[in-house]
Amino acid sequence: MPGAAIVAEYLDELYGPDMDDRRLLPQDTGQRVEVRRLMSWFNDKFFAEVSGPLTLERFYKRHMPTEQGGGAPDTEVIRAARHNIRYHMAYIGWLVRSRDWLAGDRLSYADLAAAAHLSAADYLGDVPWNEDDAAKNWYARVKSRPSFRPLLTESMAGIPASPSYADLDF
Amino acid sequence: MPGAAIVAEYLDELYGPDMDDRRLLPQDTGQRVEVRRLMSWFNDKFFAEVSGPLTLERFYKRHMPTEQGGGAPDTEVIRAARHNIRYHMAYIGWLVRSRDWLAGDRLSYADLAAAAHLSAADYLGDVPWNEDDAAKNWYARVKSRPSFRPLLTESMAGIPASPSYADLDF
Repeated sequence: MPGAAIVAEYLDELYGPDMDDRRLLPQDTGQRVEVRRLMSWFNDKFFAEVSGPLTLERFYKRHMPTEQGGGAPDTEVIRAARHNIRYHMAYIGWLVRSRDWLAGDRLSYADLAAAAHLSAADYLGDVPWNEDDAAKNWYARVKSRPSFRPLLTESMAGIPASPSYADLDF
Repeated sequence: MPGAAIVAEYLDELYGPDMDDRRLLPQDTGQRVEVRRLMSWFNDKFFAEVSGPLTLERFYKRHMPTEQGGGAPDTEVIRAARHNIRYHMAYIGWLVRSRDWLAGDRLSYADLAAAAHLSAADYLGDVPWNEDDAAKNWYARVKSRPSFRPLLTESMAGIPASPSYADLDF
């Protein structure tokens, strides 16, 4: 199974041409670079610095045998991820202060990638929502879309979602 | 500047449609997934496990201030990268025993990504060329292409290339 960005390219090739202005990877070559750049920013960089460490420490390690690195969460790693997320919130806010959506005038795979990773951190209660109003408003718009609703009903055994997770008016 | 795979997508969108069967990202949707999967394999996974650590330890750390992590190479990291490269050689060999090129019947961005990372490791003398004959033969074919020649004349200050690096009959 290839990564999320490769699946996004595949879906765009199959269904994108019929989507007109609802296409999640837009037609224009320059805009496509921006969508891909931001998909990679969130799928790779945000994942490495924030959502990967948080989900590993707070979720996966519970289910891993000790000899494979399982056990209690490493609080230093969690602290670093909580520190790192702050500049990502500022970056999201900076982007959407000059554009309607992360990569431009339309919702794109960049928004879905960012919202997916942010949602994982939000489940764990690790998103500082008061950090940047523009970032919060952007996430509220993504979260309110009908397609996002089923995600908000999901839960992980033994780890209840944070109060903000499923709240559309967080 | 976005990553290599995003530049490859951009170049394909601009120039690919006129390249016919020399297109580096092929026309067929299924084949495109395979090229992208392997680009990511080498640009992300091989880089993380082999070429990234090797170039960091053996090259970049010489030029980095101590307080930013510069200094002597970590021999344990180099040892791990040299261990990791062996299964990548076996994987390359496995692929090209059933196909002419890494992602299929034609040269693609997958070959260029793999060869670029392998070339960096080869410069440092860290590719076990006797590990897999099919992998070695594939690399010899890429290396013999006119477009690859200029790379083989490059050198890094203070670090001479390994004997195999520029040798077409290595």
